[in-house]
Amino acid sequence: MDNFAILFGGVSYEHEISIVSAITLKDVIKEDKIFIFCDANREFYLVDKEDMKASFFSKREYKKGEKLTLKQGGFYKKSLLKERRVEFATLINLIHGKEGEDGTISSLLDFFEVKYIGPRVEGSVISYNKEFTKLYAKSRDIEVLDYQILQKGCDRKLIFDYPVIIKPLRLGSSIGLSVARDEKEFEYALDVAYEFDNSVIIEPFFENIKEYNLAGVKSKDGYIFSFIEEPLKESILDFDKKYLDFSRSEGANRANIDQNLQKIMQKTFVSLYEGLFEGAIVRCDFFLKDDKLYLNEINPVPGSLANYLFNDFNSVIKAILLPKKRDIPIDYRYINSINAAKCK
Amino acid sequence: MDNFAILFGGVSYEHEISIVSAITLKDVIKEDKIFIFCDANREFYLVDKEDMKASFFSKREYKKGEKLTLKQGGFYKKSLLKERRVEFATLINLIHGKEGEDGTISSLLDFFEVKYIGPRVEGSVISYNKEFTKLYAKSRDIEVLDYQILQKGCDRKLIFDYPVIIKPLRLGSSIGLSVARDEKEFEYALDVAYEFDNSVIIEPFFENIKEYNLAGVKSKDGYIFSFIEEPLKESILDFDKKYLDFSRSEGANRANIDQNLQKIMQKTFVSLYEGLFEGAIVRCDFFLKDDKLYLNEINPVPGSLANYLFNDFNSVIKAILLPKKRDIPIDYRYINSINAAKCK
Repeated sequence: MDNFAILFGGVSYEHEISIVSAITLKDVIKEDKIFIFCDANREFYLVDKEDMKASFFSKREYKKGEKLTLKQGGFYKKSLLKERRVEFATLINLIHGKEGEDGTISSLLDFFEVKYIGPRVEGSVISYNKEFTKLYAKSRDIEVLDYQILQKGCDRKLIFDYPVIIKPLRLGSSIGLSVARDEKEFEYALDVAYEFDNSVIIEPFFENIKEYNLAGVKSKDGYIFSFIEEPLKESILDFDKKYLDFSRSEGANRANIDQNLQKIMQKTFVSLYEGLFEGAIVRCDFFLKDDKLYLNEINPVPGSLANYLFNDFNSVIKAILLPKKRDIPIDYRYINSINAAKCK
Repeated sequence: MDNFAILFGGVSYEHEISIVSAITLKDVIKEDKIFIFCDANREFYLVDKEDMKASFFSKREYKKGEKLTLKQGGFYKKSLLKERRVEFATLINLIHGKEGEDGTISSLLDFFEVKYIGPRVEGSVISYNKEFTKLYAKSRDIEVLDYQILQKGCDRKLIFDYPVIIKPLRLGSSIGLSVARDEKEFEYALDVAYEFDNSVIIEPFFENIKEYNLAGVKSKDGYIFSFIEEPLKESILDFDKKYLDFSRSEGANRANIDQNLQKIMQKTFVSLYEGLFEGAIVRCDFFLKDDKLYLNEINPVPGSLANYLFNDFNSVIKAILLPKKRDIPIDYRYINSINAAKCK
């Protein structure tokens, strides 16, 4: 039995970067693994390790491969007479954005009882919607930048001074994101963001804010944290470079910060993770401004699982503590009494 | 083609009341309809109208019926040579609690492109978790009662004076809910609630608070509201009577309130619904205390769809405006350039 099944592709604007992310993990994860591709029609295909190249997907060659059906207990291959389950111990949800991170894929895996690494439905919804992330962080006494939500077709009145940063409310990566320095740029940026979501979120933009990324996971022996990265400034808003980020396996810029700040970030990470992200490798992106730490965003399916931030990613992925589902007894104890009472 | 498919049962503590709810709707909905049952093993079965009786399920007779497979495009019957899709125009998600209301079922239906009435994944998560409901309501300037969250195995220190009401954080209906008037009752109530969830939510309990329920839905021609119900006091905490509530088709106690309060409730309903619950018939339960309106909870799959609150439920169910999914183009525009850049 292979140890891991990597589920990638999926219906999202990050479909292509999920493919690149999976190609990256092919070499990073040393354990036995298989690859399951979800295409634009939401059909699943088993992909050979040797076929894990960009052109295999862009040329739709995967369609000649083995189609899988997801049903109770896992993914099944059809053979002449009967179906056979594809065997693996744990699936890794590597579908970035939309259905991979909004709760859809996690619901599917939970419903069909596939054991998986990745966010569950609550953590997905809270991290995928940038307003919910802020409400959630604030409820845990974690600072976030001020924000404003605008709806497509409604008022476009800005409450902040320029410059501001405009993002679709519900997208991962930097797609549809712009910085606006005046009204003309703002109007344009809004239209760009509305291409991706009917709601946009606007925040003041601070030129010289510090950024720090910390990944981590809860294991049987407590939390495992990555080192802290200070991402290089130039890459923050550059679309293509952000894409590249999803395929990284090395080259993170280690932040030069004191132990105290590191401790605060780890503590903040735990407050956010606990009770909501069990089972997932999460990357939290922070801002530091005037010595105050702010949560920027929570990535529950970070590009190539943020492997490049861990010294020993293979041991991390094996140590993850997966949440247990609660057994719900269905024993028909009440139904006859309900019906009897109803007939009274 | 039948107009509606009613999906009921499901893995949840409310499995049995979902059956009763579906039996009730059999007579309430006049349109053509079929019934799809999700059993305790998450297998789907087509159920004949004539078999829609409690004993058919409690005696597991449904297992002799036709099994369905959910896959791209809908539910399929297996015939000797090929599969045939079960035809219907719109599915009604009538699975109460857990997987019906926590986003699982909605994700499944969205993923497999089944057109349905019911909450989408975001609305499900926000309404199913009582803390998220409060954070969400507050972000829309709607009052909620103060609350405290406790975790299983942690500190049990109460911050409120008695009496308090203790609820599992994530359950529908009144299951696991108690009022505690002293420490002994509180300790017992906590243990009861922890049977259902690792987190509990505690609020001050006000004996003589007024309760009002309002159901509604967004249609092509704007909002349709139900009349406002003032539920009878005795039924609030009574487990069996609350169960009965799910099977109601009549007998709501019309609230005797002035037009102004009705307007305020409707306005509050719209603030909560807009952008989050499109596609669902939602019942909002309010408190009125010292002339201030508080949101108690949002039920996105209310018992028998709160049909008994509408004067003409059949026209409501036909008028619901279902949200459109955004088309996400997957065109492999970037992947080759990403890979090229990566090899630089």
